Amino acid sequence: MKKVILDVDTGVDDALAILYAVNSKQLDILGITAVSGNVPLEQVNINTNRIVKLLGVEDRINVYKGADRPLLKQPYHEFRVHGNDGVGGALDDIAIDFPEHDVFAPDFIIEQAKKHKGELTLIAVGPLTNVALAVRKEPRLAEWLKEVIIMGGLVQSAGRGNTIPTSEFNIYADAEAAKIVFHSGMNITLVSLDVTRQVLLTEEHIEELKGTKYYDFVKQSTVDYRQFSINLYGINGCALHDPLSVGVALDPTFVQTEKYYVDVETQSELSYGQTICDFRNILKKEPNVNICVGVDSERFLQDFLEYLKR
Amino acid sequence: MKKVILDVDTGVDDALAILYAVNSKQLDILGITAVSGNVPLEQVNINTNRIVKLLGVEDRINVYKGADRPLLKQPYHEFRVHGNDGVGGALDDIAIDFPEHDVFAPDFIIEQAKKHKGELTLIAVGPLTNVALAVRKEPRLAEWLKEVIIMGGLVQSAGRGNTIPTSEFNIYADAEAAKIVFHSGMNITLVSLDVTRQVLLTEEHIEELKGTKYYDFVKQSTVDYRQFSINLYGINGCALHDPLSVGVALDPTFVQTEKYYVDVETQSELSYGQTICDFRNILKKEPNVNICVGVDSERFLQDFLEYLKR
Repeated sequence: MKKVILDVDTGVDDALAILYAVNSKQLDILGITAVSGNVPLEQVNINTNRIVKLLGVEDRINVYKGADRPLLKQPYHEFRVHGNDGVGGALDDIAIDFPEHDVFAPDFIIEQAKKHKGELTLIAVGPLTNVALAVRKEPRLAEWLKEVIIMGGLVQSAGRGNTIPTSEFNIYADAEAAKIVFHSGMNITLVSLDVTRQVLLTEEHIEELKGTKYYDFVKQSTVDYRQFSINLYGINGCALHDPLSVGVALDPTFVQTEKYYVDVETQSELSYGQTICDFRNILKKEPNVNICVGVDSERFLQDFLEYLKR
Repeated sequence: MKKVILDVDTGVDDALAILYAVNSKQLDILGITAVSGNVPLEQVNINTNRIVKLLGVEDRINVYKGADRPLLKQPYHEFRVHGNDGVGGALDDIAIDFPEHDVFAPDFIIEQAKKHKGELTLIAVGPLTNVALAVRKEPRLAEWLKEVIIMGGLVQSAGRGNTIPTSEFNIYADAEAAKIVFHSGMNITLVSLDVTRQVLLTEEHIEELKGTKYYDFVKQSTVDYRQFSINLYGINGCALHDPLSVGVALDPTFVQTEKYYVDVETQSELSYGQTICDFRNILKKEPNVNICVGVDSERFLQDFLEYLKR
């Protein structure tokens, strides 16, 4: 089984990504690391522990807290999308009656990467602060990790970001961290908005889950998220950003990738957090990121729903 | 007849644009203004006067020199595309044996816009330095001009610029000037790389001109230009950037437009000159630019070739 760590900022779609990853039973999840992002770190930690409890895996999957803010920028959260508590109030009833773990998330990532050299896949679906701190503490992390699958950025479709026009949330939330990670030498696959926006969880999909264990959670947690998508994009569905990133770990053929040089904008307010892909190799730099140029949405959605029904 | 001024940085496709505009006999060309761009101002002036002479209209269409450099940036020329003299050596034999005019280009634009209030179309196919200087001298220019058709920018297809990955040449050559113009209140139509790259003059098109007056010029001037396109883009043809802008003046239905808020990046080296279009109205600003979202390439190319054959 593929060994993975999930780095999350739970978050509605982070929660769905964790459900999917655990229920697949195809991944050896060594731990989950939390980072400030969609909501503040403490809330990320609570949400993630609650999801772990909901799944009944709190005895074998630990949650580790990481960075409580971006490297340089003021914290920026997405309450509009994820509700005030990050999961639309869908986990309020779950008590965390088990001990928390006090290893700092970046240290946990380093420790596991060292222990499982060449075998560990890091799935990072929040701002990249934890990953950046880890690689600055331990530069060999880049060679120790088998791969890093990152949900973030917008590389093909200009002017259609979800924070400012140029930029996607995870990279916008900490562009300096993203710049560190993109230039770290890691084997990166970037699952960007260009493809995640093509995998939409609709109300009909959710009704397919009726009668299964996670129906209530999925239905309630996605209410605000779907309303936001309708209001902003006219799309009646939840883009499965983070679950698709887990999907790429489970089956890389869900997406088609091409490798290019990608840099991150940090100098300008107007385009802060933009991921700039040099498609024409104008800059003559070594390609550093596998970007996703296509996605098999239908097949991924079927897989996602199958595993959630279990 | 539509009254127009052409603001050019001749350049191969500028020369083709002038040929097209004059030969159409559908435009009342009040004058041509020159700006530093593809090649230095003096060469732009020589090339433009030679084209005017080639067309035999030197007695009624005057060329006015404008800015010899960008507002802030160091001059950046495109000898790779346009050859050292800007037109692939195709006009060497033409002597300029008529007097030049010493009205400063921005002043000429202001004078004509004032004289023909609400009737003048400015077709600006070089860096926007002349236009920026004009509107800073005379802010009423924005209301006096009927419209400004600008060849510049890249708004839809990220990472595929022709200077640095984010940026198109004319805007990159003077982003501060473009920023001034975009925020001036002018009625702007932006004919961007997104559409101009779809109108390709191929070798077969050029051979259609055989036996006509301008065949030799078109063939010789485009040799380097086509080679550059083949090398960089794998495209065997000249993108008719500037002629398409003239085409939009002749027949606005050659393109489909939509109006959005567009800003210009000036703060960052990495994305200097990027045109950022807020497709989702995230910034809640007033739309200021009509961008081209589609082009009827075939019909335009037929029109262009018909007029060149005359």
